Amino acid sequence: MRFTKAHATGNDFVMINDAAGQLHLPAQQAAQLCDRHLGIGADGLIRAVPAHRTEDGRTALTRAELTSTDEAPVWFMDYRNADGTAAEMCGNGVRAFAHFLVAERLAELTEGDSLPVLTRAGLRTVQRVPEGYAVGMGIWSFIDPQMASESASDSLVQARGLTDPRPALSISMGNPHTVVALPDAQTLQQLDLHAAPTVEPVPPQGTNVEFVVPADPLVEGGVGRIQMRVHERGVGETLSCGTGTCAAAAAVRVWVGADAVNTWQVAVPGGEVTVTFASRSDGAEDVTLAGPAVLVYSGELTA
Amino acid sequence: MRFTKAHATGNDFVMINDAAGQLHLPAQQAAQLCDRHLGIGADGLIRAVPAHRTEDGRTALTRAELTSTDEAPVWFMDYRNADGTAAEMCGNGVRAFAHFLVAERLAELTEGDSLPVLTRAGLRTVQRVPEGYAVGMGIWSFIDPQMASESASDSLVQARGLTDPRPALSISMGNPHTVVALPDAQTLQQLDLHAAPTVEPVPPQGTNVEFVVPADPLVEGGVGRIQMRVHERGVGETLSCGTGTCAAAAAVRVWVGADAVNTWQVAVPGGEVTVTFASRSDGAEDVTLAGPAVLVYSGELTA
Repeated sequence: MRFTKAHATGNDFVMINDAAGQLHLPAQQAAQLCDRHLGIGADGLIRAVPAHRTEDGRTALTRAELTSTDEAPVWFMDYRNADGTAAEMCGNGVRAFAHFLVAERLAELTEGDSLPVLTRAGLRTVQRVPEGYAVGMGIWSFIDPQMASESASDSLVQARGLTDPRPALSISMGNPHTVVALPDAQTLQQLDLHAAPTVEPVPPQGTNVEFVVPADPLVEGGVGRIQMRVHERGVGETLSCGTGTCAAAAAVRVWVGADAVNTWQVAVPGGEVTVTFASRSDGAEDVTLAGPAVLVYSGELTA
Repeated sequence: MRFTKAHATGNDFVMINDAAGQLHLPAQQAAQLCDRHLGIGADGLIRAVPAHRTEDGRTALTRAELTSTDEAPVWFMDYRNADGTAAEMCGNGVRAFAHFLVAERLAELTEGDSLPVLTRAGLRTVQRVPEGYAVGMGIWSFIDPQMASESASDSLVQARGLTDPRPALSISMGNPHTVVALPDAQTLQQLDLHAAPTVEPVPPQGTNVEFVVPADPLVEGGVGRIQMRVHERGVGETLSCGTGTCAAAAAVRVWVGADAVNTWQVAVPGGEVTVTFASRSDGAEDVTLAGPAVLVYSGELTA
């Protein structure tokens, strides 16, 4: 079996081209491939398959009102977590997916153009931009609807390396996030995220926790800048988390009342991404995540 | 650049065939290749090069009193740690190295035969055995020469998950090890080795720490059986440590006074290895480490 290894700001993926839609990958095998010592090693596995060629893809296709044919396929992103379970979406993974489609000549995407990508969470639109790829991430929202005010916090977070619990704000990007502001980069660096931070009150579905530090100045040339580390629910610390960077930018924007600042650069341990907010007619805000994607190597499993 | 990914009981390696001896790999590049998110990902990198074709190999060749030519090369194992620094030897790495040489048809090794392998620590002899490969690891010794008695301990070790510090025995396999006996498998499982265990008195060069649990019965059919986890000096917990399994077997053999038991099966998180002791005429004991090696995939870096 041939594969390509890719990463997007340090979130890394095993990419598989299944144009024929004939690859059946049980969860256990996907987990073995993602094992970092015994397999290939990755945060997740992404199979590229024409949407009309798999059950999951056909379901997503119906919702997206798109037509996929062998001549003009719409590509379905069959994303698995490192434990082999199917997942809906991965913000960084979509960039790696688009880059892989282009490299394998499965799709064309020139700067300014956009490409529809089907995921289990529905349709995503990817654009080629100077820094790599930009992906529509949907809207953000407060998890606690009472929180639509400045300087808001709805929980307390404690982590190894912090002297006291710190106030935090819970943001949904489809999945739950708890964003904690830290005073400086040194405090951020000294965090020990081997253990999961504790959140009070305990989120019923668990939560990803983002620790953020504002740049000095926070806003320069109309662009907000923050630095972040993340502990992903059920995973541990990662080099990057797509929805986490969006949630972190949304929270800081609320805290500092910087509604007019719509572009945020978020530095994560694996690189830097750009989060953009755009108002919709219903008052909600669409979030776009842009950043690089890299194909590191191609490989073939030894029989 | 082409490479092969291999592992030996979960110790994993990027293997490179440099038959021409023309590959210059700066430490920084080796470290990038070993990065688990941005590169290929491995515990170390092993370049296979004819001994007479590199400076390091020629030095080792002189000490080993062997002849290496283009027609009949003696292979030098150019081993780098994950941080890119050159290392002398790796007990599990030698098995992966031998398996790679055979798979790439750089050397022949049938069962019963032996193959000389040059390392920065000198000559190692590898044999093909039913469970994989057996490697001569040299002799073991007490770090504190006063310790040549039963039930010996020369230090105290504390780790996250232990209620109290526990007595330990320091064993050298060329590199330093501190072996700690635990009462049962549950205590072993509950250890949190994200943080380095603390050893008193503090070993001047640092130490690898092995936590071992005896099987019940300890000896069955003349073979001793133990289970082990290891925290490697400067690395953290690993799935396996070749010299660590040898040191652990040596320590348990001392503690239980089982000098007559010369074969030990050591279960590590990454699999199982066999450690064998053989008396030499000078009273010291040679240690042999046997276990499997697996080639997982071959790959080629994307430009």
